[in-house]
Amino acid sequence: MKRLWDKGDQPDSLVHRFTVGDDPQIDLRLVHFDCIGSAAHARTLQRAGLLDGVEADRLAAELARIARLAGEGRFAIPDELEDCHTAIESHLTAALGELGGKIHAGRSRNDQIAAAVRLFMRSHALRWCDEVAETIACLIDRVRRDGEAPMPGYTHTRPAMPSSVGLWLHATAEALLEQLRAVGHLLELLDCCPLGTGAGYGTPLPLDRRHTADLLGFARVQRNPIDVQNSRGRMETCFVRAAADVAAVLEKFAGDFILFSTAEFGFFSLPPELTTGSSIMPQKNNPDVLELIRARAVRLRARQHELEWMAAKLPSGYNRDMQLVKGPVVFAADEMAALLPAMRRVVRMFVINRDRLAAAMRPELHAARAANQLAQQGVPFREAYRSVADSLRRDNFSPPSEVCPPSRWPEMLDATEEDVCELTRVAADYRDRIFAAEKKLLPDA
Amino acid sequence: MKRLWDKGDQPDSLVHRFTVGDDPQIDLRLVHFDCIGSAAHARTLQRAGLLDGVEADRLAAELARIARLAGEGRFAIPDELEDCHTAIESHLTAALGELGGKIHAGRSRNDQIAAAVRLFMRSHALRWCDEVAETIACLIDRVRRDGEAPMPGYTHTRPAMPSSVGLWLHATAEALLEQLRAVGHLLELLDCCPLGTGAGYGTPLPLDRRHTADLLGFARVQRNPIDVQNSRGRMETCFVRAAADVAAVLEKFAGDFILFSTAEFGFFSLPPELTTGSSIMPQKNNPDVLELIRARAVRLRARQHELEWMAAKLPSGYNRDMQLVKGPVVFAADEMAALLPAMRRVVRMFVINRDRLAAAMRPELHAARAANQLAQQGVPFREAYRSVADSLRRDNFSPPSEVCPPSRWPEMLDATEEDVCELTRVAADYRDRIFAAEKKLLPDA
Amino acid sequence: MKRLWDKGDQPDSLVHRFTVGDDPQIDLRLVHFDCIGSAAHARTLQRAGLLDGVEADRLAAELARIARLAGEGRFAIPDELEDCHTAIESHLTAALGELGGKIHAGRSRNDQIAAAVRLFMRSHALRWCDEVAETIACLIDRVRRDGEAPMPGYTHTRPAMPSSVGLWLHATAEALLEQLRAVGHLLELLDCCPLGTGAGYGTPLPLDRRHTADLLGFARVQRNPIDVQNSRGRMETCFVRAAADVAAVLEKFAGDFILFSTAEFGFFSLPPELTTGSSIMPQKNNPDVLELIRARAVRLRARQHELEWMAAKLPSGYNRDMQLVKGPVVFAADEMAALLPAMRRVVRMFVINRDRLAAAMRPELHAARAANQLAQQGVPFREAYRSVADSLRRDNFSPPSEVCPPSRWPEMLDATEEDVCELTRVAADYRDRIFAAEKKLLPDA
Amino acid sequence: MKRLWDKGDQPDSLVHRFTVGDDPQIDLRLVHFDCIGSAAHARTLQRAGLLDGVEADRLAAELARIARLAGEGRFAIPDELEDCHTAIESHLTAALGELGGKIHAGRSRNDQIAAAVRLFMRSHALRWCDEVAETIACLIDRVRRDGEAPMPGYTHTRPAMPSSVGLWLHATAEALLEQLRAVGHLLELLDCCPLGTGAGYGTPLPLDRRHTADLLGFARVQRNPIDVQNSRGRMETCFVRAAADVAAVLEKFAGDFILFSTAEFGFFSLPPELTTGSSIMPQKNNPDVLELIRARAVRLRARQHELEWMAAKLPSGYNRDMQLVKGPVVFAADEMAALLPAMRRVVRMFVINRDRLAAAMRPELHAARAANQLAQQGVPFREAYRSVADSLRRDNFSPPSEVCPPSRWPEMLDATEEDVCELTRVAADYRDRIFAAEKKLLPDA
Repeated sequence: MKRLWDKGDQPDSLVHRFTVGDDPQIDLRLVHFDCIGSAAHARTLQRAGLLDGVEADRLAAELARIARLAGEGRFAIPDELEDCHTAIESHLTAALGELGGKIHAGRSRNDQIAAAVRLFMRSHALRWCDEVAETIACLIDRVRRDGEAPMPGYTHTRPAMPSSVGLWLHATAEALLEQLRAVGHLLELLDCCPLGTGAGYGTPLPLDRRHTADLLGFARVQRNPIDVQNSRGRMETCFVRAAADVAAVLEKFAGDFILFSTAEFGFFSLPPELTTGSSIMPQKNNPDVLELIRARAVRLRARQHELEWMAAKLPSGYNRDMQLVKGPVVFAADEMAALLPAMRRVVRMFVINRDRLAAAMRPELHAARAANQLAQQGVPFREAYRSVADSLRRDNFSPPSEVCPPSRWPEMLDATEEDVCELTRVAADYRDRIFAAEKKLLPDA
Repeated sequence: MKRLWDKGDQPDSLVHRFTVGDDPQIDLRLVHFDCIGSAAHARTLQRAGLLDGVEADRLAAELARIARLAGEGRFAIPDELEDCHTAIESHLTAALGELGGKIHAGRSRNDQIAAAVRLFMRSHALRWCDEVAETIACLIDRVRRDGEAPMPGYTHTRPAMPSSVGLWLHATAEALLEQLRAVGHLLELLDCCPLGTGAGYGTPLPLDRRHTADLLGFARVQRNPIDVQNSRGRMETCFVRAAADVAAVLEKFAGDFILFSTAEFGFFSLPPELTTGSSIMPQKNNPDVLELIRARAVRLRARQHELEWMAAKLPSGYNRDMQLVKGPVVFAADEMAALLPAMRRVVRMFVINRDRLAAAMRPELHAARAANQLAQQGVPFREAYRSVADSLRRDNFSPPSEVCPPSRWPEMLDATEEDVCELTRVAADYRDRIFAAEKKLLPDA
Repeated sequence: MKRLWDKGDQPDSLVHRFTVGDDPQIDLRLVHFDCIGSAAHARTLQRAGLLDGVEADRLAAELARIARLAGEGRFAIPDELEDCHTAIESHLTAALGELGGKIHAGRSRNDQIAAAVRLFMRSHALRWCDEVAETIACLIDRVRRDGEAPMPGYTHTRPAMPSSVGLWLHATAEALLEQLRAVGHLLELLDCCPLGTGAGYGTPLPLDRRHTADLLGFARVQRNPIDVQNSRGRMETCFVRAAADVAAVLEKFAGDFILFSTAEFGFFSLPPELTTGSSIMPQKNNPDVLELIRARAVRLRARQHELEWMAAKLPSGYNRDMQLVKGPVVFAADEMAALLPAMRRVVRMFVINRDRLAAAMRPELHAARAANQLAQQGVPFREAYRSVADSLRRDNFSPPSEVCPPSRWPEMLDATEEDVCELTRVAADYRDRIFAAEKKLLPDA
Repeated sequence: MKRLWDKGDQPDSLVHRFTVGDDPQIDLRLVHFDCIGSAAHARTLQRAGLLDGVEADRLAAELARIARLAGEGRFAIPDELEDCHTAIESHLTAALGELGGKIHAGRSRNDQIAAAVRLFMRSHALRWCDEVAETIACLIDRVRRDGEAPMPGYTHTRPAMPSSVGLWLHATAEALLEQLRAVGHLLELLDCCPLGTGAGYGTPLPLDRRHTADLLGFARVQRNPIDVQNSRGRMETCFVRAAADVAAVLEKFAGDFILFSTAEFGFFSLPPELTTGSSIMPQKNNPDVLELIRARAVRLRARQHELEWMAAKLPSGYNRDMQLVKGPVVFAADEMAALLPAMRRVVRMFVINRDRLAAAMRPELHAARAANQLAQQGVPFREAYRSVADSLRRDNFSPPSEVCPPSRWPEMLDATEEDVCELTRVAADYRDRIFAAEKKLLPDA
């Protein structure tokens, strides 16, 4: 078989190479999802009377086989077939003859790719829920183990007030909780079915779009066919954003960790197996893993922006620019699969140097507390502030003897865990729904 | 009064100028919200026994007066007072003497500004719900009036399939509906109270944070005090993003409109009062309003990215970099207030040139329909495609006589409107809740 | 007078407001340069016989008067006149009657604004040469004063090898030297005259463009009139980039300084007059000035990107989007005028804590030297590396007694200064040329 | 052999995988350049008496062999060896025994990679000079062939004034000429030698850095070793920027072309072999090649920004983040190698539809000329403008009979070509210099 749009002309080979680009590699990641979408389309054609039951069954079986082959790395997309859609239709035609040519009725590569990418994103966003929740759990575990260790709190990278290892770790857990909520919002956004909108202007065939959406486990039909095409880039941006936002939380942790584990701060260390060395300085144990979390967070953010500008200032309807939208989506999925486990490894294994932490708890950290204590005794706060400043200046400041109120760790951690539970429960229901739907479409894939 | 941190030293004037920057101008926009936050803090101090009822009442009354002055443009922030927090505390001290100095107990400018900006964002995000919903309504009105006019649908900026003015306008409505949903998510994100976390490490005073949150109408307490500071930049990014995403929808409409209203396409025109002219070409009627929607969407997106990078790679806890986070937030609010009304003006008033549209409905637009029709008659789609391609090539293609199925406008528009209703109902409840809360805190403001 | 394109219609006031935007404020910064460009245009019209000598003289004199008024803050651009071009032509007409209306023959606001912005950028780029050179000088001064102080050198934010305060400061000087070279390239880029290309397609009037370029002190004529319009955004990007690149150098210095002046590193301090304090923590002396150098560098980079995307994906020829190109240009000029003096203040005044530096010079810093020394004695480097690693691990490493070779400061600093001299000499010649040209055009401005 | 920093510990495999990342693939592109740098380093060690002549010769010969192997795709970098530096040192040790271990004396992977990437960039920047010059030549050829064809000139995407196909094509040639100048500036920037600075703090070995620079054909020594590391990211940004700026010129051409080749404008067409089709619309001939030039320009710009932010806010000295700087550099080289030939293909082969162009030359295009003609006859321009506006409004405008002055194509094109010649001559000299240098270092590579 040939390109789907083959009309007998021979394309210029340089231009062919230029337009095909990386599609044959990147589309391998979409084959599974295109098979699911195609199976749903076949069933929709069946319902419209355009395929009979046997035909639809045979198509579904062959699509399941393609999905299996792809899962085993045994489905190839030759350059001359351009993309996964062509390779799949070509495979179907080779296997099923004329029947393979029937699958494309009432659809276009435009709604087909929108559906495949949406299914890909939905599937990965669900994994992210697990990964993020697991990382929060890992942080909370560490807080429960070591959270009470005192640690200076910083503002302007300057010692400010008493804090603790637990407060610091919990801040990352809470920030990830916010991202978990955001991934939930992402899932809600993605929960609408683009299939059945053809090239962007609908199809004259009497396809039941609500039925297609149900088959694929989508809550909503994406009603307007032009909007389906216009939403490409837009939805992918939201997907990559969610990843970049998670990565930004890890990046802040990484930056803090690099700082707090310098020789000079010395609060934390990495165990040797998590460090790397220098080719010339035998003494070095470097936190490369954290530097790369930082750097890969930057890269992911940059890919988000790439998508935002890629989609900007394009006329409505499909434009070929959308080809380049797929790369950052697949990239984001891969990065998340690498970043979160690396993060957890560090959270579980990093060493807390309690002596260095204790030594860092200098009296000045209590200056604000001293001022607030005076305020509690009735001195207007601004006056109390100046009096403490004076005693610091005259070097005769001593922190108030009264200890800090007992920390409220247990409740705080419980509250975070409760929120995680609630948010992941929603995701789990969602997962069950779509898993059942996909299972039904491609039972043997 | 002086800087809040005055300890008797004279700051270098060049450095003072450099660090103060635009704060005296930008903070004027925050005075109202800082007064609300301060009133809630005063009531929390009262509950903790640190102020008595008369004191709290007097502070609340004076804060209301400041808010009124600010609303009338009569509250100034002198350069030497740096920011709105200092100017407000200074005003309170001038008006109430020693009592003014008591308001800052148990808080810091760090949680104070986090709260003021959050209240600002929440307030504007609610306005955006209205503005976006009104713009959707305006688009749907126009669809009801003129939506049936046929219009070519484009892919690759090439005539592709039959479409209509309504389908095109409705695509923008649906994209805005998605943004309305996203603004709802933003409101949920913002719905947690940062106040009571001090400089980022809590306060030793026994403040009831849940009470503060209730006073301010927040659903959740932002538990971790470090996370409160770390969330600066992060939450502001989400705010500016929501604006930039709305603007991106308008930008696509604007780009389409500029194209479809060229002399060459001629589908639409602007009435003279919406165009501008050239200083040397007397014949020109330029779509500057649409070019600027496009350009201002770019600018807004760039400000989003500015925030994303501003917050990146900073150590946790407050850093002065956060000063520059306020500008883009205020900017986004102003841009939204300008962009959406301009958009509606265009949507309501643009002229539809039905003759040009009719002339553009060339037979080739029906080629895919012809192929699908053959497919309906049992020809495998790929074969049907090649046969139609041949007839086009031999110039003897005639479109199938059967007309398009009647459009499903009424249902589609109703469904969009229903979704708008549901989403705005949530926003309205939210608005009622916070309006009541703020009213109670500053009854006379 | 009215808008230059007034044809009797009344524009919609909301749209008028939307399209005018900030122009009346921002354009105030361009009045001086528009007067210079206009004077050159008047002289070109004179040469073409379209104005007589008396007319050109009267126009030049009035333009000089406008430039003087603007310099004194006494030239206003009312909203209804939209921009500086209209306000200037309006002023000329009010002052000179019919003659004022003659100035616009053979030009357009399109080439007029391209010229004014180019003159603005050229003027500021020249200032940047001075500012950057002065900052390098300031750094080298400090190196000469305190450069020999030993200091650890870091990789991965970990102590790596022996370095010195001088080596660290000189790194910034060299990075700025590279930017000085880049500003020179910018000046070369900007050194071509856009005037005389009308709206972007030339003018039928016989204007001598080479003459105009000479009058304005430009080396080259920007030949292609379409390219003149297409270069808007493109050239402005280069201007803002040069500023952002300088700022990035300052940002790295600032980041280092914040780190090296933490309580934990303690190598450097800021004198009290360069620090700011906290509203609640009396002990704090914060490096806000350096945090804001970092943050303002981010903001400037973001504005560069704003321009890059603003200009992207626009059709060739003038588009109204270009209105928004002016803001970031003026912004960059202002930021550079603030950043470099702040930087110099810090470089001159920061305190070096020699005790802390000395204490930080731990033996491990010499591990690579030890390995290299073994290599000099014939041991293959990789083997020497492992042997030193072993002795570190067994805790019996002692650094080689031989001291470091004497630093080559004097030559290195001399070489840097020589390069600065050479690069600034080129800039100075350039400045003389354009100063003479502008003086001749507007002798009394 | 093992990792260069192997000290006997077993790294965590997940962290190893995470830190190694794509290096084994990307570094393959750097092997050739690392061999050149290593050969220069061996010769420098020889000059310092640390290797004898035979040793240096043997190393050089083996490095040449590695370079050849890499050129033939037969040099592999196993994951466990991390990067090209380790793989090369490992190969040398396998082939030459103990001598292989001597090459790393006095250097570090930090200056080694800086050198390899710089040589890579320099080599590709030189190719860009050729590619850009060839593209300009291709545009000018087309202008000479078809440039006189009249074509409307647009402002605001609205017909404005008479223009021509040649003026439009020449605008792209001139914009590319500016980029050719910029690539020259890039080459000047890159023309300094980082080798000999070790990990970023120099080397105690008496290496003659001026000699190393000469061996590699660099004009300058990059003096400060810290700056060498700090310039990573910075110089790479300039490299990717130059590519992105060239791509931006192509993108504008592509955008114009897509517009001017719509069915509605119809000025140009693509021959069938340069178009692609639709999977469902048999009539489509889509300009995918131009859409992808546009999209790939966006992607390249995004990678530039990725580098800018990657390098931002890092402490001075080497940080592992720099690993991710290599990818965008190699990417930019590949994109340029794809984009410029695709562009030339289009420029040479696109079809000019003279009938459509002629039909588009409507009388209104001459309105400004009419006003200017009145101005030449003494009517103040602003009055002439209004009188023409009136006649247009009353529909009795007829353009002035006098034809446009004959275009000045021959001179303009000659001038462009002359500039290209001059700029490429400089590049050619540069190329000769470095070619000779590299040839001498690795004679048989």
